[in-house]
Amino acid sequence: MDKLALFQQIKKKSSFLCIGLDPAIEKIPSHLRKEADPIFAFNKAIIDGTADYAIAYKPNLAFYEALGPQGWESLQKTLEYIPKDIFTIADAKRGDIGNTSKLYAKAFFEQMNFDSVTVAPYMGKDSVSPFLEFKGKWVILLALTSNEGSGDFQRFENVEGKPLYQEVISRSQAWGTEDNLMYVIGATRGEMIEEARKFAPNYFFLVPGVGAQGGSLEEVARYGMTETCGLLVNSSRGIIYASSGKDFAQAAAREAAMLQKEMDKYLDLYARR
Amino acid sequence: MDKLALFQQIKKKSSFLCIGLDPAIEKIPSHLRKEADPIFAFNKAIIDGTADYAIAYKPNLAFYEALGPQGWESLQKTLEYIPKDIFTIADAKRGDIGNTSKLYAKAFFEQMNFDSVTVAPYMGKDSVSPFLEFKGKWVILLALTSNEGSGDFQRFENVEGKPLYQEVISRSQAWGTEDNLMYVIGATRGEMIEEARKFAPNYFFLVPGVGAQGGSLEEVARYGMTETCGLLVNSSRGIIYASSGKDFAQAAAREAAMLQKEMDKYLDLYARR
Repeated sequence: MDKLALFQQIKKKSSFLCIGLDPAIEKIPSHLRKEADPIFAFNKAIIDGTADYAIAYKPNLAFYEALGPQGWESLQKTLEYIPKDIFTIADAKRGDIGNTSKLYAKAFFEQMNFDSVTVAPYMGKDSVSPFLEFKGKWVILLALTSNEGSGDFQRFENVEGKPLYQEVISRSQAWGTEDNLMYVIGATRGEMIEEARKFAPNYFFLVPGVGAQGGSLEEVARYGMTETCGLLVNSSRGIIYASSGKDFAQAAAREAAMLQKEMDKYLDLYARR
Repeated sequence: MDKLALFQQIKKKSSFLCIGLDPAIEKIPSHLRKEADPIFAFNKAIIDGTADYAIAYKPNLAFYEALGPQGWESLQKTLEYIPKDIFTIADAKRGDIGNTSKLYAKAFFEQMNFDSVTVAPYMGKDSVSPFLEFKGKWVILLALTSNEGSGDFQRFENVEGKPLYQEVISRSQAWGTEDNLMYVIGATRGEMIEEARKFAPNYFFLVPGVGAQGGSLEEVARYGMTETCGLLVNSSRGIIYASSGKDFAQAAAREAAMLQKEMDKYLDLYARR
C-alpha cells in the first residue's frame, strides 16, 4: 500500500482512525475469559464492530509479549483476521544494528505480514534502513512522542536551537520516501504538530495520544492535515474499553463511529477529496 | 544480583565475558537441524561448553522473534538452562510509554526471569523507569552503540558541545543506581570508552563490538576498567560460530577460554582483586 492507496482508503471511509489493539487480560470483559483464546476473541469482536470506521489497526507488541508464546499466537490470529484493505501497524518500537533490524523486519513483514512497524531512531540509519528495504512495507519512525519523558532527549537542542526530534525528521528523509516512511508525532498540543509539519510537509504522521493521553482531534487536524490527509490518529483505550460488559463491541463501534464522523468533517475542511 | 555480587562472579571466574546467544537457523551446524528444537539444542551445547568462562549470556530477542511462537519457546528453555549464577541479558532494546514499558518489564523479568534488559532511551524517563522498579533487576541503557549509524543522533551536540549520548548518561543517573543501571558503550575505539567513563566513573558498561564488529579488548580494558571491573564485554559470532562442524561446542569453548585468559590479565592490571 503506497501513500495514495492509503489516501484512497481514507476517502472511501471518510476516516483517518487508527485503533490500538492493546488488550490486557485483566481489563477485557469477564465473560470472554472462558474462551480458548480470550485475547483473540476480544480483538475479533472489536474488529467486527469497528472495521467500517478504521483505516488502521495497531497492536502494541508489549501486550502480546507479556503473555509469552500464547500471546504471539493470539497476535498472529488477530492479524490474519483483519480485513486486507485495512492498514496494519506493529507497534514494536524496535531498532538494532543492521543485521538484527533485518531479522525484526522479517519477523513483522514476512512471518506476520504487517504493513508497517514503529521504529526507534536512536541507533541511526543502519538500524532503520533494513525495514525500508521491504517493498510495499512502511517504517513509522518515532520523532516526537506524547509521553512525559519525550522532553528528556527529543527536545535536546543543537547550537542552532534545533531539537533532536526535528533532526530525526530531516535526516531520515534521505533514507525513505513519502511512500514508505511516516513519523510518530505526539498530539498533546497543536503547535507541536504544526512545528513538525514544517520539516515534513507531505509525510504521513501517526498521532497517538488523542483521548486517554489528552490530545484534541480538532487541533491535530487543523495543524497537521495535508491535501492527502497525512494523518492517522490513534485511539486505543477510549474505544476498546468503552464498555466492560457484554456490549463492549457495540460500545467500541459507537465510539469509533463518533470519531469517524468528526474526522469526516475535518477531511471536508482541510483535505482534497 | 547487585554490582558487588556481579564483581564477585567476575573475580571467581577471572572473566568479564558476555556471550551473545544469537543463533540463526541457517548458520547453526547442519546435524542439529534434525533435533526437535534445533535452536535450543545449539544454545544448550554452547552453554555447556562456555559456562565456565562466561559471566553473562545475552540472547538477542530478534533471533527468537523471527521464528514466531516456537522461537519464544526456544528462548524460554534456553533461559531456564543457563546456570543461576550467570547474569542474563535480554537484548531487546525496548522502550515505550510508561504502562507499556511496564508490560515489557513484566515479560522479561517475570514471565522469563531475565536479570536485565537493554532499553532504548529515546522516549525518556517514564519509558525507562518502569524497568528499574523491579527489585534485583537491571536496565542496560543504550548510550553509544558500535554501529555505523551511531553517529547520526547519538553524537548530536548541544550548544556546549555535549553529544546526546553523554546527556543520556548524565540524565539517566537520576533514575537508577550503580546497582540497577548500566550503559551500552560501543567498543570500536578506546577513546570513546574513556570519554564515556568521565560521565559514569563507577557504572558497569556493556561493551558490544569486540571481535566481529572490530573493537580491541586491550583498549576497552585499558580505558574502561574500574576498580570493580565495570565491564561486560560481549562476543557473539566469534564464539558461537567458531566452527560449523560437529565440534562447534568445543570450538566455542576454546574461543571463550582464550578471551577469558586475556581478560584475567587485564583484571590483574586494572581492577582491585
